[in-house]
Amino acid sequence: VINYKYSNTLEKARGVCVKSTLREIGERDSVKLIRAVLDSASDIGEGDDCAVLELGDNYLLLTTDVIVEGRHFPRGTDGRTVGWLVVAVNLSDIAAMGGKPLGVVVAAALPKHKSAAYLKAVSRGMKACAASFDTEVVGGDTKESRITTLAGFALGIAPKDKVMLRKGAKPGDMLAVTGTLGLAAAGYHSIKSKPKKGSKKGLEALLKPRPLIGEGLILSGTGKVTSCMDLSDSLASSLHQLSELNNVGFEVEYEKLPISKEVHSCGIEPKRAALYFGGDYQLLLTIKKNAFSGVKKSLKKSGTNLTIIGRVTKKADKILIVDDKIERLENKSYEHFK
Amino acid sequence: VINYKYSNTLEKARGVCVKSTLREIGERDSVKLIRAVLDSASDIGEGDDCAVLELGDNYLLLTTDVIVEGRHFPRGTDGRTVGWLVVAVNLSDIAAMGGKPLGVVVAAALPKHKSAAYLKAVSRGMKACAASFDTEVVGGDTKESRITTLAGFALGIAPKDKVMLRKGAKPGDMLAVTGTLGLAAAGYHSIKSKPKKGSKKGLEALLKPRPLIGEGLILSGTGKVTSCMDLSDSLASSLHQLSELNNVGFEVEYEKLPISKEVHSCGIEPKRAALYFGGDYQLLLTIKKNAFSGVKKSLKKSGTNLTIIGRVTKKADKILIVDDKIERLENKSYEHFK
Repeated sequence: VINYKYSNTLEKARGVCVKSTLREIGERDSVKLIRAVLDSASDIGEGDDCAVLELGDNYLLLTTDVIVEGRHFPRGTDGRTVGWLVVAVNLSDIAAMGGKPLGVVVAAALPKHKSAAYLKAVSRGMKACAASFDTEVVGGDTKESRITTLAGFALGIAPKDKVMLRKGAKPGDMLAVTGTLGLAAAGYHSIKSKPKKGSKKGLEALLKPRPLIGEGLILSGTGKVTSCMDLSDSLASSLHQLSELNNVGFEVEYEKLPISKEVHSCGIEPKRAALYFGGDYQLLLTIKKNAFSGVKKSLKKSGTNLTIIGRVTKKADKILIVDDKIERLENKSYEHFK
Repeated sequence: VINYKYSNTLEKARGVCVKSTLREIGERDSVKLIRAVLDSASDIGEGDDCAVLELGDNYLLLTTDVIVEGRHFPRGTDGRTVGWLVVAVNLSDIAAMGGKPLGVVVAAALPKHKSAAYLKAVSRGMKACAASFDTEVVGGDTKESRITTLAGFALGIAPKDKVMLRKGAKPGDMLAVTGTLGLAAAGYHSIKSKPKKGSKKGLEALLKPRPLIGEGLILSGTGKVTSCMDLSDSLASSLHQLSELNNVGFEVEYEKLPISKEVHSCGIEPKRAALYFGGDYQLLLTIKKNAFSGVKKSLKKSGTNLTIIGRVTKKADKILIVDDKIERLENKSYEHFK
């Protein structure tokens, strides 16, 4: 979610020419423009995965994510997968802030020619995903549309003193990721490659991602995480976002990246898959120096691994170290089924 | 919003053939089907404007409503109006339950050829509407789409002992509406008629509706309202919904309907405008017998009028009395810009 509770005047859309089209200004400036207009007093949750509302000692976390057929999932994807996906991508935003989900609503816009069986499958997928993470799809709205479009909204809650924000990374902190990188890329490859080179695990990561709700709760509980976000965008793009928000840089060691075995076995370029592809719903986090082994141990209870991949630096560079050579991390990510 | 927290087995989609298309089964059975799949334990908020989550002595109210260009607003509508509309229709669902809005998020899917000025205007409209009702647009998401589609999501809160539900109408209760009926129809007429016969007030009611947040809070505060919903669907369709949910009927006296002057002055058929058109974001409510004058007096503080239009009956008929003749209320409503 793009959080509009935003007060950084430097970020305002002073430079955006209002005569431009959205194609010309791109998503980045579109967001700046909206932020500049909606600018409000609070800066909690600035740029975070969820918007944040205060409620006593807690924050309510609100997020929305839309998935569109042919853009976020391929045409012909079965309904159950689509239903799972729309709930999962929204819960992932709650997970990234260490929140506990309270409920999900889904507004589904579907073409009239779709079958009732398809709708039933979508509903089952939504229910299955929500139930897996101890929450429910509590409501929604149905509309007609030419292209299958599902807008999900998730509500979560997190104690104020535990919530994980994108802001907070400090020079000297360790940079870490959960799980592996590039599985979604391997899954994408198994759809697009001819002849098909399958990665069932990859396909599952791409279209039926598992939001890391339990992991987020454990991580936030340690009190040692200084910033966190999910990796729905690419690792490189996420690092650029964290860098800008925290006014810090990152040094990433390529050989430490936990690149999925599936990436190697399906023959796609590992660097591209792990750094620039996106679609992995893992968590990217910074941790207080010396606290890593404790955090990793806590997380082990959930069955998820945590890997140090680099560190936070003072200089706002985003660099990758490969065999002692330094490369710059580009700020790019893909929309996969365009 | 269609509330999926639903436990009435009679309402289940036993009869829906899964081979049918959504065109064949229609929205009504689509909803039954989703409900049957998502069926959960709670029946609070059954069929209500918002989905409901318990939070101590309060309910959190969650709702979502999508607006699509060419369907819910005419092509070419200015951005500010579109932004206002998406926030207003969502806040109206909060109002209908007597809730206080906590925040709104909007997922906007826009064509690339739209201008930055348009996006700015949309943002301004969203902000203006939210600010008018003492809340904020706290986050959102932007995506690309061929057709301008805005999915709004509102979060509200209401004390458990004050919340107004659709369920609760009892035979003998009075049936009442706020404000006037048919203004949105008059507005629609001013767009569609050739030569144009303007109703500026009607156009405003249609495209820049005022969610009755203050009114909902006053009404729920009286403790005398037995059921309530907004009139975004037509009056006739809303009565059918309340009838089915409460297992009661309604007698409506045509001459008591507070039909807007604009309806008469623009020359459209008053009965169709007031009963079947929809798009008026007024509140439809049932009130304990003998409590009407007290409730009307309380509501007057908000400047909004309350009119008795009939009563709740034991027999599940939905009838209209015109000059002592009895007509049945049809179950119909329109999607206006189809």
